[in-house]
Amino acid sequence: MRRDRIKKLLQDKVEKEAVIYGWVRTNRSQSQFGFLNINDGSTVTNLQVVYDPEHIKNFEEVSKFRTGMSVEIKGNVVLTPEMKQPLELHATEINLLGDCPEDYPIQPKRHTPEFLRQYAHLRCRTNKFNAVFRIRSVAALAIHEYFQSNGFVYVHTPLVTCADCEGSNQMFKITTLDFNDLPKGEDGKVDFSRDLFGKQAFITGSGQLQVETFAMGFSDVYTFGPTFRTENSNNKTHANEFWMIEPEMAFCDLNGLMDTEEELVKYVIKYVLERCPDEIDFCDQFIEKGLKDRLTKLITSDFKRITHHDAVDLLLNSGKKWEFMPSYDADIQHEHEIFLTSKFGPVFVTDWPRDIKAWYMKDNPDGKTVAAVDLLVPGSGELMGGSQREENMEVLQKKMEEFHVDKETVAWYLDTRKYGGNIHSGFGLGFERLIMYLTGVDNIRDVIPFPRTPKNCEY
Amino acid sequence: MRRDRIKKLLQDKVEKEAVIYGWVRTNRSQSQFGFLNINDGSTVTNLQVVYDPEHIKNFEEVSKFRTGMSVEIKGNVVLTPEMKQPLELHATEINLLGDCPEDYPIQPKRHTPEFLRQYAHLRCRTNKFNAVFRIRSVAALAIHEYFQSNGFVYVHTPLVTCADCEGSNQMFKITTLDFNDLPKGEDGKVDFSRDLFGKQAFITGSGQLQVETFAMGFSDVYTFGPTFRTENSNNKTHANEFWMIEPEMAFCDLNGLMDTEEELVKYVIKYVLERCPDEIDFCDQFIEKGLKDRLTKLITSDFKRITHHDAVDLLLNSGKKWEFMPSYDADIQHEHEIFLTSKFGPVFVTDWPRDIKAWYMKDNPDGKTVAAVDLLVPGSGELMGGSQREENMEVLQKKMEEFHVDKETVAWYLDTRKYGGNIHSGFGLGFERLIMYLTGVDNIRDVIPFPRTPKNCEY
Repeated sequence: MRRDRIKKLLQDKVEKEAVIYGWVRTNRSQSQFGFLNINDGSTVTNLQVVYDPEHIKNFEEVSKFRTGMSVEIKGNVVLTPEMKQPLELHATEINLLGDCPEDYPIQPKRHTPEFLRQYAHLRCRTNKFNAVFRIRSVAALAIHEYFQSNGFVYVHTPLVTCADCEGSNQMFKITTLDFNDLPKGEDGKVDFSRDLFGKQAFITGSGQLQVETFAMGFSDVYTFGPTFRTENSNNKTHANEFWMIEPEMAFCDLNGLMDTEEELVKYVIKYVLERCPDEIDFCDQFIEKGLKDRLTKLITSDFKRITHHDAVDLLLNSGKKWEFMPSYDADIQHEHEIFLTSKFGPVFVTDWPRDIKAWYMKDNPDGKTVAAVDLLVPGSGELMGGSQREENMEVLQKKMEEFHVDKETVAWYLDTRKYGGNIHSGFGLGFERLIMYLTGVDNIRDVIPFPRTPKNCEY
Repeated sequence: MRRDRIKKLLQDKVEKEAVIYGWVRTNRSQSQFGFLNINDGSTVTNLQVVYDPEHIKNFEEVSKFRTGMSVEIKGNVVLTPEMKQPLELHATEINLLGDCPEDYPIQPKRHTPEFLRQYAHLRCRTNKFNAVFRIRSVAALAIHEYFQSNGFVYVHTPLVTCADCEGSNQMFKITTLDFNDLPKGEDGKVDFSRDLFGKQAFITGSGQLQVETFAMGFSDVYTFGPTFRTENSNNKTHANEFWMIEPEMAFCDLNGLMDTEEELVKYVIKYVLERCPDEIDFCDQFIEKGLKDRLTKLITSDFKRITHHDAVDLLLNSGKKWEFMPSYDADIQHEHEIFLTSKFGPVFVTDWPRDIKAWYMKDNPDGKTVAAVDLLVPGSGELMGGSQREENMEVLQKKMEEFHVDKETVAWYLDTRKYGGNIHSGFGLGFERLIMYLTGVDNIRDVIPFPRTPKNCEY
């Protein structure tokens, strides 16, 4: 069964016979001819199909075709340079493949995001989600190609784990036991020795600890997989299941890390602009005016680097009124991020207060800060977060005690410092945050095919 | 910090100054000079470094360097076409970065797979796992490139789900509730309305049902992500967490599906042979003699297509003694697969007995078989399994009743048939099975970075 894809017809612009398979978006029929707009998912652009009773046998039938029906259409590609669309298909045969009753929710009109979230299984049939999910797909490939062309090895870190660098109170527990008939030990507590793994297991919130061990064999590695948080918060930027990219580089300090972050984000944006011009145009027009300019500008900017201390100085001396007062000991708030990125464009904020950052980050000589970095970008705030890791075994063990990290469960992790350790660094990039940045979509629920949020686990 | 990677030095074969970072594999020191073998993870091949007291300041120190230490080495690349290795590095400076005590388990000798499984966090520092996990990484990219260059959209189907096509008795349950203080309803059963998602949730065994809904928008889609099974079996081919590729194609019947399967497997093998020649040579020499021939042969074979019925005929008429008697109503056993692939080479077995296959598969007109297909390959048996899907709503609903599938939880799935449905097909490819096929490794535990099997959830 030969299939022509609409994207290719529109690219090739060649007059020829073609056969397409797709779905009716609209049908305008008059007495002597009609127009079908067909989408096959290969591009956000529809193909205009002209039909008339002279060339097809079932004109009456076709003129009643409804939105959403699936069809097979044979015909001739005719170039129409004088028209709005560069070409159209003059049908010689049109066959109905799948009916679509009138209660089809995806009618050809504007739907609100809230309405479409009720139909996560159908919304990819709209232009918006066609564009957003294609960009998501192409951006994922861009990430793989960036890393692998730079010699990184893709590591599938485990999702099921008994250890986690973010702390087990943020993790989902998993079990094969019967919830209504749990085996109990002599202490009256659940006896997980009878569970599949012989102990309490979780679904991970990060692959960092495991991927660090692979950096000590391959030098440059990355993970790219789903990640889970149990956070019970309903807002536009958090989901309980999301995808994350976590690169880790041996023999690499914080400066080398920032170089890689900057190169990666520019690579991905450039890649998407080149491969998805129609989708970006669509998002520019219907989701965020100025999106394309914003992305193009970022590719050519030089990312600034500033310490957290200097950033707080700037914020305090800005003369602005802040809802949250900037502090040398505290995190940077969204209002601060907006100020900093409007001043600098994309900016790396480095050397954060150690007490608000994670235990595995490298202590700076000042004893107060760690070699951590957040990348802030205009219009979105924090896009990536990373750090040099504490490679000194003694310091690391002291920090683990101080931060109440159980050394037993991550004894293997300490071997990365014991056997041939070295200065190494890594970062995390939330994939959905990147897609929101690339498309202008402002709600994480609209960049995930089937979002999982509190009280929401449909499909 | 400029880093030369050993792989590039070996490829470029240019005499120049270089600085490398890596780990000591071996050190042979004599009174007037010594040789370090250094690996930096960029290739399975080590770099030979020559050092002598004339050119480095710390000859005494370096001559005592142990396996596993991490080092920085500056020097000059010298081509040595008359030697075993094409080039070596004449050191001008060698610095110890990370010590490695003598209890380091990965000493330069043969270790058994069983021994190395105890050190999943260190074993990627051996040649074998360096080769296997690089092939895994490159094969993953090959899969993405194959699909995306053919217009498929990569869909991240959810892992957390309340619906699953494989049946919830094979799924892990997840919760945020306290196992030792579970809220109970009036019926005495656990009250999941107080769990994060407001109901009992699972970790999925397949993204197929969800990805089918996206095929009805994009035509050609695929998933590639982790998958989970609770199977309590300890053998060489099963793990509780593994990665799976699930493509789904609208407007595509079983023949189109087989075309794609054949093209995909050939593409991936070709890609890996081209990009990982040293790794494949290593596997050929140390894991499976004849591996490279086997893979090369597969690329040029024409995959045969035979029905299950005809395959059983052949088996029954073969004159062979079978442990399991071939039957028209039953699955094909491993001994049968060996016979069929030694006769045909790679072979698609189609049209399986409907009662042993899944509910969503397309009933054939004979009422006894379904339009399903398994791809059998020499040396491995089943590599992929797929089917045309039952697109007829009435037939599908009857089959769901017959197979005891809960229509309520997958009502959304039925919309793929209600709104613009069509003939469509998809398959599943277990990624680990592919990697075993590509490397000759015979135990799934040795192709997964941190394998999860019953009673085994370390790291």
